[in-house]
Amino acid sequence: MMSDFLERLRACIGPAHVLTEAADIESFCTDWRGRYHGSALAVARPGTTEEVARVVLLAADARIPVVPQGGNTGMMGGATPSEDRSQLVVSLGRMNRVRRLDRDNATLTVEAGLTLAEVQNAAREAGMMFPLSLGSEGSCQIGGNLSTNAGGTAVLRYGNTRELVLGIEVVLPDGRVWDGLRGLRKDNTGYDLKQLFIGAEGTLGIITAAVLKLFPQPRSSVTALAAVGDPPAAVALLRLLRGRLGDRLTGFELISEVCTRLVQKHIPRTPDLLPGHPWYCLLQVDEPWPNAGLVTEVEAALAEAAQSGVAIDAVIAQSLKQAADMWRLRENISEAQRMEGPGIKHDISLPVSAIPQFLEQAGTSIQAALPGVRIVAFGHLGDGNLHYNLSRSDSADNDAVSARSKEITRIVHDLVHRYGGSISAEHGLGQSKRDEIKRYKDPLELDLMRRVKRAFDPHNLFNPGKVLDLS
Amino acid sequence: MMSDFLERLRACIGPAHVLTEAADIESFCTDWRGRYHGSALAVARPGTTEEVARVVLLAADARIPVVPQGGNTGMMGGATPSEDRSQLVVSLGRMNRVRRLDRDNATLTVEAGLTLAEVQNAAREAGMMFPLSLGSEGSCQIGGNLSTNAGGTAVLRYGNTRELVLGIEVVLPDGRVWDGLRGLRKDNTGYDLKQLFIGAEGTLGIITAAVLKLFPQPRSSVTALAAVGDPPAAVALLRLLRGRLGDRLTGFELISEVCTRLVQKHIPRTPDLLPGHPWYCLLQVDEPWPNAGLVTEVEAALAEAAQSGVAIDAVIAQSLKQAADMWRLRENISEAQRMEGPGIKHDISLPVSAIPQFLEQAGTSIQAALPGVRIVAFGHLGDGNLHYNLSRSDSADNDAVSARSKEITRIVHDLVHRYGGSISAEHGLGQSKRDEIKRYKDPLELDLMRRVKRAFDPHNLFNPGKVLDLS
Repeated sequence: MMSDFLERLRACIGPAHVLTEAADIESFCTDWRGRYHGSALAVARPGTTEEVARVVLLAADARIPVVPQGGNTGMMGGATPSEDRSQLVVSLGRMNRVRRLDRDNATLTVEAGLTLAEVQNAAREAGMMFPLSLGSEGSCQIGGNLSTNAGGTAVLRYGNTRELVLGIEVVLPDGRVWDGLRGLRKDNTGYDLKQLFIGAEGTLGIITAAVLKLFPQPRSSVTALAAVGDPPAAVALLRLLRGRLGDRLTGFELISEVCTRLVQKHIPRTPDLLPGHPWYCLLQVDEPWPNAGLVTEVEAALAEAAQSGVAIDAVIAQSLKQAADMWRLRENISEAQRMEGPGIKHDISLPVSAIPQFLEQAGTSIQAALPGVRIVAFGHLGDGNLHYNLSRSDSADNDAVSARSKEITRIVHDLVHRYGGSISAEHGLGQSKRDEIKRYKDPLELDLMRRVKRAFDPHNLFNPGKVLDLS
Repeated sequence: MMSDFLERLRACIGPAHVLTEAADIESFCTDWRGRYHGSALAVARPGTTEEVARVVLLAADARIPVVPQGGNTGMMGGATPSEDRSQLVVSLGRMNRVRRLDRDNATLTVEAGLTLAEVQNAAREAGMMFPLSLGSEGSCQIGGNLSTNAGGTAVLRYGNTRELVLGIEVVLPDGRVWDGLRGLRKDNTGYDLKQLFIGAEGTLGIITAAVLKLFPQPRSSVTALAAVGDPPAAVALLRLLRGRLGDRLTGFELISEVCTRLVQKHIPRTPDLLPGHPWYCLLQVDEPWPNAGLVTEVEAALAEAAQSGVAIDAVIAQSLKQAADMWRLRENISEAQRMEGPGIKHDISLPVSAIPQFLEQAGTSIQAALPGVRIVAFGHLGDGNLHYNLSRSDSADNDAVSARSKEITRIVHDLVHRYGGSISAEHGLGQSKRDEIKRYKDPLELDLMRRVKRAFDPHNLFNPGKVLDLS
């Protein structure tokens, strides 16, 4: 029966696009960090929406579960198939066309398999901007960005992926195709179904194309680094700058001194721009028109912050190179932490107002549990999103930290929950947090999610075992 | 059995809050324009979420359909009960508390029964702004705004209501309460259920409270009126201004000369600011910080538009009074049209790029069908949302136009659909467009909507007969 299925699959999309050899499918069965290992019946690489639909219909007829996969850059194992070789990976990488650019509507219609960088480039070539930006943008695919509702560094101004999408095309678990590729900013004709598929991690449908919002390109930019005494001051600085600069404040990142030291230790040529402070805020201010006065406005806002005791000191990038240096300081934290040895990572969000108290309490609890451990806290403060990571103390070994990982994560997540936060701000649930979420999410909400899942995928064929537990 | 139910209801929320006399319930059974007339078993006015839940549970046990109602200002009859006296209206007006202001998180938690104006005031008193703004803001309620995903004049910058909400509290059709009052800007832990309830017009649940996003108040504002030769020039002007001013362009309204003439005819003291042009664009530019240079920037942008032939002429408001006059010109169009006599109204949206072609084709078709009819076209061009209304020609009588209403609407809606638009941009479906939408929406999408409805409300007890046809 399986060979029969594979024959039909080959006839459907061409034998070259059905991979079954262990060596060919391995990279599709393991996540990029090598944390999740699965196996697959086959990897299908359809090239069009119609082919995706036919593949899904074949799988549905044979009751074979389907695992949709984009760039395979997720953090939660959401795109890794199960280990029992029972599932079909459907890789969207061959669906990589820009279908339409509409300048006056400021929209770009793209297929799921374009990398995020390719989408950004297509927007740039049209003299506009697609603002989603994240570390893996060279390899992650836009379909995966939608399926995980990706975040990134410009959420403060532009919102999550969810807010950047006007329409989608989806292949449903029964092989039907929903053409929801509308390019409308207002449409109140029933339930907003696209918002169900966005962030569903492939459990409700396979997103094959999307209409994305474009924005004017920045033509004036100011990057600055401010030192503050503690997290409450960082929150006060955020408020002051939003009030002064409005939406031109497009990024506001919090960085602890532990982070800057790690980067300076491991990444060559990291300049020490504002040494000796406990916390830093990295600010990005953008305007779509050349405005020579923008830097003066930022200076005035930072001067006010200094005068009122909110900021200790600040430096404004004097060149593109210095601006890039500031951003590299932020972007190299993960890499520096990796070079320091294995740690424990948490992708959490909180109401911005709760972050100071959370940091204080979490710090106390964690130092009590693991004395001397270094807290590598940084993230998108403007969105309430922290990467709250832990790294061994200089004198301790990695194993001691890793062995306590579960216990420490429990402390962090329980505290996040107590402050009304989320245990997955950007990365989704995948397989990694599927059970963990049951500790925190209202059973009623889980029940509603299951009802939606059963209504859309009654045979549980789309990415089973991810996001929710149907048992 | 009914008297038994009413007894329980009175015991549950107090007899003063259960209305059954015809005179008491009349205003809840007719919409504010007097177009939809229903009757009700009773009107329940619960004062807390727990009371809403108990009322819903009582109704569910007795299989009595529930019609949630806010300020009763909708346009589509979505809050009007059926005529057979079988339904219970649940009016949220007594749930009118501000539950929490969180300045650092820039959020306001409010109950459903606050009027939009009360929400705006609460934000203003906190030195911030809630940007949703619409004609009925003095009487519409925030719960209704969420349930209909209201639009208004600032969508260009701030998005629809859907984008202004971080969390909601909902009473489900079985009386359970979902506390989804999260104040998080990032939360990727499963399906975004709140987006299902927002815009569902009370068919999936009763929204009892919400966490709303606040923004910095504008401290510099420029209002201007520009004359353009035709709709393509209006679209070009929008692009030019967005590129120059970015998000500071918060409003961009298109107004035809027919509209300005109607306002000048019927509304006393309407100044003729820029006489004798076929189309006008009303612009609003806002910044959160005092910026004396803003007016110079707007002037420069408009000068560039004039030089490049995009704009014919423009005038910038020199005083708050002149700015208010410009906005009154826009806001009085509906009233002026009403005074001219009954007309035919359409609330449509299109890709911004398709608006010029749509206007040309629709104008041709409609003049062929109803020679001499006046096309009262205006709306939120920046969002692709037009109020495409028709008014009798000077010499014709109203009856002649009204008699052709169905035929004309068919021409307009068919054309909207052909250009990828929506037949309800802001107002929802309610009972008015429940059947009309079946002509245009993909049956597959209607099927998915029905699946969601059945999953959440298996006995079809919440606002039955609105939005979708389950038969």
